[in-house]
Amino acid sequence: MAVYTDITEIELGTFLRGYDIGELLSYKGIAEGTENSNFILHTGGGSFILTLYEKRVERSDLPFFLGLMEHLANRGVSCPLPVRRRDGEMIGELAGRPAAIITFLEGMWPRRPTAAHCRALGEALARLHVAGADFGLTRPNALSLPGWRTLWEGCRARADEVEVGLGAEVGADFAALEIGWPKDLPSGVIHADLFPDNVFFLGERLSGLIDFYFACNDFLAYDVATCLNAWCFERAHAFNLTKGTALLAGYQSVRPLTEEEVAALPLLARGSALRFMLTRLYDWLHGPEGALVMKRDPMEYVRKLRFHRQIVSASEYGLARA
Amino acid sequence: MAVYTDITEIELGTFLRGYDIGELLSYKGIAEGTENSNFILHTGGGSFILTLYEKRVERSDLPFFLGLMEHLANRGVSCPLPVRRRDGEMIGELAGRPAAIITFLEGMWPRRPTAAHCRALGEALARLHVAGADFGLTRPNALSLPGWRTLWEGCRARADEVEVGLGAEVGADFAALEIGWPKDLPSGVIHADLFPDNVFFLGERLSGLIDFYFACNDFLAYDVATCLNAWCFERAHAFNLTKGTALLAGYQSVRPLTEEEVAALPLLARGSALRFMLTRLYDWLHGPEGALVMKRDPMEYVRKLRFHRQIVSASEYGLARA
Repeated sequence: MAVYTDITEIELGTFLRGYDIGELLSYKGIAEGTENSNFILHTGGGSFILTLYEKRVERSDLPFFLGLMEHLANRGVSCPLPVRRRDGEMIGELAGRPAAIITFLEGMWPRRPTAAHCRALGEALARLHVAGADFGLTRPNALSLPGWRTLWEGCRARADEVEVGLGAEVGADFAALEIGWPKDLPSGVIHADLFPDNVFFLGERLSGLIDFYFACNDFLAYDVATCLNAWCFERAHAFNLTKGTALLAGYQSVRPLTEEEVAALPLLARGSALRFMLTRLYDWLHGPEGALVMKRDPMEYVRKLRFHRQIVSASEYGLARA
Repeated sequence: MAVYTDITEIELGTFLRGYDIGELLSYKGIAEGTENSNFILHTGGGSFILTLYEKRVERSDLPFFLGLMEHLANRGVSCPLPVRRRDGEMIGELAGRPAAIITFLEGMWPRRPTAAHCRALGEALARLHVAGADFGLTRPNALSLPGWRTLWEGCRARADEVEVGLGAEVGADFAALEIGWPKDLPSGVIHADLFPDNVFFLGERLSGLIDFYFACNDFLAYDVATCLNAWCFERAHAFNLTKGTALLAGYQSVRPLTEEEVAALPLLARGSALRFMLTRLYDWLHGPEGALVMKRDPMEYVRKLRFHRQIVSASEYGLARA
């Protein structure tokens, strides 16, 4: 459920006069996104999404996020296109917050992804990586190893409240990752949060990628690892080899992984599982009481961590030999 | 903020095959309505609102609510038109709940209504009353005097927690209303909840009335009284005579009030203020702790009650003499 800033029809009408998208016909707050307030707009020019950036998004990061969407959309990646204002800017101000308008993408995110969805996702991810190669701005990944360490310092003492022994178990992961984390793999712009709710489909055809607000520069294969975690496990936590095979084949049909990336994939997947486990654990231990924010169970990602620890070769994820 | 039942794209796609509105293109939960879960749908046939009726709406009342919207829309009242299914029904089932699809109305509700809005609202209310005259179904008003008495029994003992003396003060209102409440005024279908957030405008042109889930049969002038309460007071609680005059003139341009209605208006307005004060007081005293549901201050309506107690003649609301 989105953070929700109400805006009046008067101030929104005034704001829209900065754009060339026709008269305002309606706007409704939508229950999507957890960081920002989002509205669906109907105007004389069609349907759009208006986003008010709440305090968890750094204003200084917006040119990267919005510029990236524009860059990718212009290179044929299906993602929302930020609408430029009459003055050429992509970012305005509304209700005291930075605000932007992006095109509306039709499509639905798959609640139960199939192997066909996973293949299409893999292809789209590789296209994003290829198209992002000549994007001019950079943004470091705040949620890479040093960031995980910071999160962990804030959780470690209470980790055993979630499961006895979790503190020691995750401590061993940190030791392994800090020794083995790759220093030099193909890098570029990654989405970094390409979960099913950020990928729209019409049937089995992928219609668009959304929510670039974790995008950053990092190893491209780390994004692949995150998608394996987000798309290829069943509800009972078992890895689905058919989905993994489809996702990796889709990716490699556009951008084949290098030998070094293949070798690093198990450790990257373990690191990615640790990253999502840590943000969930942090919210679990520090989030407000009550039902307002849905807390996601960190144990789902502890189970994925345990799975990746056992993996010797990327072929166990379904990677076909080149 | 709406109650929010998630639905999968698969079950929604299946549900839509019962309708003739084209393929599903997208759906998003919207933060509108407090009783039900609402989604904006885009399909090959255009934009629609999907409503899942949560437990506070009686399933047996749905034919009245939806039938009324269809009846009014067919008589030229701007309101959503329920879309009939291929089998002719207006109500289906989705995610274990009764569900209906209605047409999408463009327009925005006015956060700060002007006198022009009030005039247009008065006209639309009168048209609703005229068009409703030959609607075949009836539904008693559960929130009329006996219903208020029931609410009051559940609040009275704790009313002084809100303001010392409130219990005795409201007790006196009940005594006056039970003696003076009209027995015989022009009756018919009323909206019963025509607050600004249920009336859409494009500029100063009224584009539609929504949310008929309190509609019922009662005195027509009671609906006028509710609109005076909902539209013609300023934030500092003063009655705005210009807005009252505009609202009543708009109403009478379509349906002139009878002498009996004019004479009863002050008491009807007092009763209507009591009704909204009581539901707010009830929620205030019995609602869950925490910020999940926004509690509205009952004192706003206590102040309106006090205003109406002083009124001798409907001319004080701005009613022009016939």
